Amino acid sequence: MAQDLPVSPLAPAGFPDLPAVAGVRTATLAAGLRYQGRPDLFLAVCDEATTAAGVFTTSKTASAPVDWCRQVAPHGAGRALLVNAGNANAFTGRAGRDAVAGEVAAVTGALGCAETGVWLASTGVIGEPMDAGGFPGHLAALVERLGPPDWRAAADAIRTTDTFAKGAGGNAQIDGTPVALAGVAKGSGMIAPHMATMLAFLFTDAAIAAPVLRQLVADAADHGFNRITVDGDTSTSDSVVVFATGRAGNRVIDDPADPALDDFRALLQRTCLDLAQQIVRDGEGASRFVEVRVSGAETPAAARRIAFAIANSPIVKAAVAGGDPNWGRVVMAVGKSGEAADRDRLAIRFGDLPVAEAGARHPAYDEAACAAYFKGAEIVIAVDVGVGTGTDTVWTCDLTHGYIAINADYRS
Amino acid sequence: MAQDLPVSPLAPAGFPDLPAVAGVRTATLAAGLRYQGRPDLFLAVCDEATTAAGVFTTSKTASAPVDWCRQVAPHGAGRALLVNAGNANAFTGRAGRDAVAGEVAAVTGALGCAETGVWLASTGVIGEPMDAGGFPGHLAALVERLGPPDWRAAADAIRTTDTFAKGAGGNAQIDGTPVALAGVAKGSGMIAPHMATMLAFLFTDAAIAAPVLRQLVADAADHGFNRITVDGDTSTSDSVVVFATGRAGNRVIDDPADPALDDFRALLQRTCLDLAQQIVRDGEGASRFVEVRVSGAETPAAARRIAFAIANSPIVKAAVAGGDPNWGRVVMAVGKSGEAADRDRLAIRFGDLPVAEAGARHPAYDEAACAAYFKGAEIVIAVDVGVGTGTDTVWTCDLTHGYIAINADYRS
Repeated sequence: MAQDLPVSPLAPAGFPDLPAVAGVRTATLAAGLRYQGRPDLFLAVCDEATTAAGVFTTSKTASAPVDWCRQVAPHGAGRALLVNAGNANAFTGRAGRDAVAGEVAAVTGALGCAETGVWLASTGVIGEPMDAGGFPGHLAALVERLGPPDWRAAADAIRTTDTFAKGAGGNAQIDGTPVALAGVAKGSGMIAPHMATMLAFLFTDAAIAAPVLRQLVADAADHGFNRITVDGDTSTSDSVVVFATGRAGNRVIDDPADPALDDFRALLQRTCLDLAQQIVRDGEGASRFVEVRVSGAETPAAARRIAFAIANSPIVKAAVAGGDPNWGRVVMAVGKSGEAADRDRLAIRFGDLPVAEAGARHPAYDEAACAAYFKGAEIVIAVDVGVGTGTDTVWTCDLTHGYIAINADYRS
Repeated sequence: MAQDLPVSPLAPAGFPDLPAVAGVRTATLAAGLRYQGRPDLFLAVCDEATTAAGVFTTSKTASAPVDWCRQVAPHGAGRALLVNAGNANAFTGRAGRDAVAGEVAAVTGALGCAETGVWLASTGVIGEPMDAGGFPGHLAALVERLGPPDWRAAADAIRTTDTFAKGAGGNAQIDGTPVALAGVAKGSGMIAPHMATMLAFLFTDAAIAAPVLRQLVADAADHGFNRITVDGDTSTSDSVVVFATGRAGNRVIDDPADPALDDFRALLQRTCLDLAQQIVRDGEGASRFVEVRVSGAETPAAARRIAFAIANSPIVKAAVAGGDPNWGRVVMAVGKSGEAADRDRLAIRFGDLPVAEAGARHPAYDEAACAAYFKGAEIVIAVDVGVGTGTDTVWTCDLTHGYIAINADYRS
């Protein structure tokens, strides 16, 4: 199944240096669940006081592990995270729920912890029953390997068709106490071939009460992961989970409005956005990274819907792939969004180049300059729809022969 | 701009034999508006008593001719239809409105009719100002050529990137009086390269009051054109207009509930669906024709939304292109539709082949048989979501290298 795809031309130069995060130990294992010769299991074990919160797919056909996480989430405790690549354990009915129960029992058996602190995620084939019979053995092997966080190994173990490992993080202060944040993610198509899912897991040593963490992760996911699209599809398994061990020793933050959170909130948002953009940069077949900025909409939500109408339009994305500054297609996408736009005030820019204003082609429009701009690897499409003050920005990639090749030509 | 694309492998065997329709004369002309050496103008002139009604794009950036048609529609009169290919006259601001005024003046000048009976449509490049200066001359030439309807010539004149001419029609009875219907359409992508639009024009000799015709065309468009998708995009110019000359001599129908309309209504719906499916069969790069049937939804509208979530999913369409019976992607698309679905009752069939039932892979699932079925040119994807009695069916085509080639590689 490993398709030896070349690394995306939009990949970052390398995996970033990430902080260790006190209170977290990690391990990976090549369990041979589907792939051979590569790690496919990731275990993180956190200190007992760790709080946790997550946001999950809006899919009506969510996977069994997502159902499980929703069940433990209200407890707000994060003792362990177990992630497997190769099988999504989605649309597997009763067998899927049984596999989840087997995984949970294996984790609690190996760690001696309560099941309410166990979080699970699976990514891979949909509809294939997953046999949890081997998990007690896998967990024993993982526990033996537990050590200081190896984020690069974690990011590698959760890959499916990803062409590079994705990580982001950094440092902030809460009440003057330094805190660390490290995150890993996977995703290339919203659904890769027979493979599913965008997953992101973040770990911090900050002390943050679970209800506050819930709000922080929801806001950060909205700021980051909810503003990207590769193909407009939504997986059965999308999950973002944050664990906070409290080992940094800051005063526990139990009010989401506490200004002491500002620096950490900004770090979390920046990190989620960074991971999200890395997923777009690994979009299946992507050759260009596209930022779509919309202004002048009725509301920020309207701006986001217009931006996604542009970012999800196959014909706009194919034009970008072709290096074709085809702005008529952008007009079309604005129109089909269904959001208010003043046709006679609509303005479009490609990067700094004027394209359209006041509802018609800009007098200074320069087709050759725009075509040259579209040959670059990073494109900004900016649209002002002329009816209000709502703005938002989303990110996507182009729609290339590579996307078709990955999703049509390879037989999985 | 004519790209000499090969005729779609899904094209019908030939252009159908269509009835002449009393009270209609047509002409076409190679006016050289953008294309050279091919007709690009179509004029239809109808008897004075002709009623007309249309439905138009939901785009918020509708073209100038669409704005014009919406203005004349309440009059319900249909004396003339003028259609040009090569320039969509969309997003052209003041110049676009001036061009429409010039076209209307040319038509009324040549025919001596009221402007309220003049309908216009334009398809082609978006954002390019259209010069109406030559239209008085073009109209004079067209009027000289007026003759009995030549539907094949009309269908050819309105093509942009279409690879075949599209027509459909037939005969029905109203109160025992035979009536005829003929229609032509164009469209390949919802937006073709720098070209826009799905257009359909239908002509009947039935006598039907304008308010009744309005309801008939709205219902028939919903039955046909609103159930197809090539790439999920919506053009600035989509238009469906029906003209009814009354020359058949039936009693004028002025009540939409009149049972005398049943046979004609069925003919109109059949014809719109036929034209709509021809557009899908000419979908850019299409190699497979896909019918998506959804049952068990909460309502028919929910069923249609689920069907479109499947039919618009790039990853489902790419799987079809690859001949890959990747049913996990269908599950994903059902989930992302946001409509109610019972994961534990979900059932999927490909044609007559069982794929999934009761929320898991069907025991009789046969991957090889499904793969063989997916090698065919016509695929049926049937999904029962297990929550109600709502059903609907939509049609689409696959997403192939050909789509990318047409929309990315060709520089327009």
